[in-house]
Amino acid sequence: MASKSVTVLVAGSWGTALACVLADNGHRVTLWTRSDAQAREINEERRNSKYLKDSRLPEGISAATDMPSALAGAEAVIFVPPSSAMRDVAHAAGPHIRRDALIVHATKGFESESLKRMSDVLAEELDRPAGEIVVLSGPSHAEEVIVRHPTTVVVASASIACAEAAQDLFMNDEYFRVYTNPDVVGVELAGALKNIIALGAGVSDGVGYGDNAKAALITRGLAEIARLGASMGANALTFAGLAGVGDLIGTATSRHSRNWRAGSLLGQGLSLEEVLKQIGMVVEGVRTTQSAKKLAALYQVEMPITNELHKVLFDGKTTTDAIGALMGRVRTHEIERPAFDLDSGQP
Amino acid sequence: MASKSVTVLVAGSWGTALACVLADNGHRVTLWTRSDAQAREINEERRNSKYLKDSRLPEGISAATDMPSALAGAEAVIFVPPSSAMRDVAHAAGPHIRRDALIVHATKGFESESLKRMSDVLAEELDRPAGEIVVLSGPSHAEEVIVRHPTTVVVASASIACAEAAQDLFMNDEYFRVYTNPDVVGVELAGALKNIIALGAGVSDGVGYGDNAKAALITRGLAEIARLGASMGANALTFAGLAGVGDLIGTATSRHSRNWRAGSLLGQGLSLEEVLKQIGMVVEGVRTTQSAKKLAALYQVEMPITNELHKVLFDGKTTTDAIGALMGRVRTHEIERPAFDLDSGQP
Repeated sequence: MASKSVTVLVAGSWGTALACVLADNGHRVTLWTRSDAQAREINEERRNSKYLKDSRLPEGISAATDMPSALAGAEAVIFVPPSSAMRDVAHAAGPHIRRDALIVHATKGFESESLKRMSDVLAEELDRPAGEIVVLSGPSHAEEVIVRHPTTVVVASASIACAEAAQDLFMNDEYFRVYTNPDVVGVELAGALKNIIALGAGVSDGVGYGDNAKAALITRGLAEIARLGASMGANALTFAGLAGVGDLIGTATSRHSRNWRAGSLLGQGLSLEEVLKQIGMVVEGVRTTQSAKKLAALYQVEMPITNELHKVLFDGKTTTDAIGALMGRVRTHEIERPAFDLDSGQP
Repeated sequence: MASKSVTVLVAGSWGTALACVLADNGHRVTLWTRSDAQAREINEERRNSKYLKDSRLPEGISAATDMPSALAGAEAVIFVPPSSAMRDVAHAAGPHIRRDALIVHATKGFESESLKRMSDVLAEELDRPAGEIVVLSGPSHAEEVIVRHPTTVVVASASIACAEAAQDLFMNDEYFRVYTNPDVVGVELAGALKNIIALGAGVSDGVGYGDNAKAALITRGLAEIARLGASMGANALTFAGLAGVGDLIGTATSRHSRNWRAGSLLGQGLSLEEVLKQIGMVVEGVRTTQSAKKLAALYQVEMPITNELHKVLFDGKTTTDAIGALMGRVRTHEIERPAFDLDSGQP
């Protein structure tokens, strides 16, 4: 495989882990960061201690803080900022990116307020067709990638050529396996919406219920985010793949997940305010529950788990009442329209 | 709901738990067992201590050892023997079952040698159309059902009327939620084949890999059993539902699962012989891996994870070599034929 010049923005844990994969694959990688101290540590000590402790970074990575020179000559640009920073980072980077550069992003979540997906934000700010942009997602803790434990991800783009170019860039035979999928909408929605289910799974555990209840929440939660996805143009089967089920297995069943932990505290009876205070960081699933409720109304999709979770978070409904309401719903089918939907859409 | 006369065969942990659900729903339940001592304990002490420790059984259950009288007048008969005993139990029960009785089974696995599904075995022995038989499956540890923690299951039958009759029988508003699905083949195959994936997930953990590798194995394993299922007439989306993903979440990520534990020991370098000796009980995933390999050949379906697992179990291949072979496969797509298949079928 030909060695390419690739720029990764920004040097968080996932951006740095992806930079390592690219360097292992023989590419020349520039990792952009705003912080001089972080750039110096990466270049001189081969570490990014804020995000990845003592893991040693390969020689093929160099960090830079000047955006124009970081992007000069890049044949591929990988965007991995937090979703809240995507528009600003893309806006700043846009003028310095070659017109023929491959654009990939690996950021989960919506733009708040606008509810836009990340590929749409990128298309707007980079002034490119959204169909050329590639999203990379899947069950991939950065800490495991950086020690080269086997990991699989999916790259999705409306352009098969772009998806395959991203597959060529990232895939290797040792530890990083990449599948292509044409369903950008599905991959982006699965990555964002799965946090609602992780929150719900935490609630069930927090109340003290067992594996049956958690498996039910995850499976039926998956059915309802797939139903929303299908209404928004996604393929329901994408939700059964790496960006959906795969990613969920890593987050909804992990005690290390912030969303699971927030849900668990809610299940123990704490209020949202108390939970957020105790966690002390953004809990994405909370914001995503609000976004999903708006999207469900917009696309007229029934999302019973999301609705009950919204009532628990914002209307003071008790978690046991919410679970009771879910169990007492009218009888329904598991699958109604097999090709597009994992569920009947009935209330 | 009208109270019905229902007979459950046999009084294992899952049969007893289902009998409790039926009794809670107001039905008159007869639980058949071969053991006089067990019948006496159930009738006199309201316990089935061999399988469910000290859990108290509802008054609506009575145990019986005489099959003709246990089945006399039953409007519904629920078969829950081990898969290896299904044919014998059905053969013995057949002559005593009313022609208009609803037939449900909740047994996972194939008949060994013949590779027949449980509903086909029942249809043969009861001399009924397979299309009338209902299968009940999903993420449901008996120990959690019996303490009435929220649980969801799916009932599948080619006959919607039969599936809905089973739904009416089992569903309640408090803790047991039942979804219908017309896809008997998918529900039966998902329940049987998922043990392969649980075994594989255990191997990955035993080798010392992380959540990424386990999530990859589960997701891609799901894709390959769904691919086999689709070739055998199942709907791939059933594998994303309660009998597939749902059940897998309970088994493949649980240290209490015998299949997971066997895989974990294999991953630590023990031979199959040593593993079976240490576990001391049947490990269904081992037999299912053999069955799936035969079915894959018969239906000409690629099942890379099953194949590698088979080599580890029976050809002495090391687990790290097997995982290496899986990572080094040719690049492929996540979804090829969206409506029927979760994967491309490529090698």
